[in-house]
Amino acid sequence: MKQYQHPTVDQISLTCVLHALSDPVRLNYVQCLAKLTSEQPCGAIPTPVAKSTMSHHLRVLREAGIIHIRTEGTQSMTSLRLHDLEEKFPGVLDSVLKAANSTTSVEEV
Amino acid sequence: MKQYQHPTVDQISLTCVLHALSDPVRLNYVQCLAKLTSEQPCGAIPTPVAKSTMSHHLRVLREAGIIHIRTEGTQSMTSLRLHDLEEKFPGVLDSVLKAANSTTSVEEV
Repeated sequence: MKQYQHPTVDQISLTCVLHALSDPVRLNYVQCLAKLTSEQPCGAIPTPVAKSTMSHHLRVLREAGIIHIRTEGTQSMTSLRLHDLEEKFPGVLDSVLKAANSTTSVEEV
Repeated sequence: MKQYQHPTVDQISLTCVLHALSDPVRLNYVQCLAKLTSEQPCGAIPTPVAKSTMSHHLRVLREAGIIHIRTEGTQSMTSLRLHDLEEKFPGVLDSVLKAANSTTSVEEV
């Protein structure tokens, strides 16, 4: 079973988080995941890009410490690391998500 | 006299702002500018990169709508567009700067 590597809270870097969120496809995915609140299969959130491209985007989000991915059977389940991010950088993800929701970023994807 | 182009508040994009802040040199520059509070000559803030590289970074920050640059004699004066950013994306720059100040981002440059 595939095991995914994740940075610890200490290893999460602000510039990596900002870079990961600076792509419209990735930001849109994080917005959707935040709205759904619970863990989701990777494929449950519709994206405008090919599966291989989305795998790259999910890797960037995982390596930045924004999402957690675990294998369950044949599925990869993703969840937001809201608690870890809030602990490390209070208010950053929250304000970015509020800003994203208030603009047309979702439509821009 | 060189005239710099700046995006209007409406034109400022969240993903462009996040991208501009995701580089350690640019984030450090914005941190310094925020601490100094007033308009500064471009060269007043020490940076670890060549002048030409810094010109690129300043252009990215200006085009993202994070800083304003104007020419005064032979100098280029830079200031943060705090009010514009707070109007467009409330809390984003503030939380990012707080996060940056609480980590070792400045030393990592």
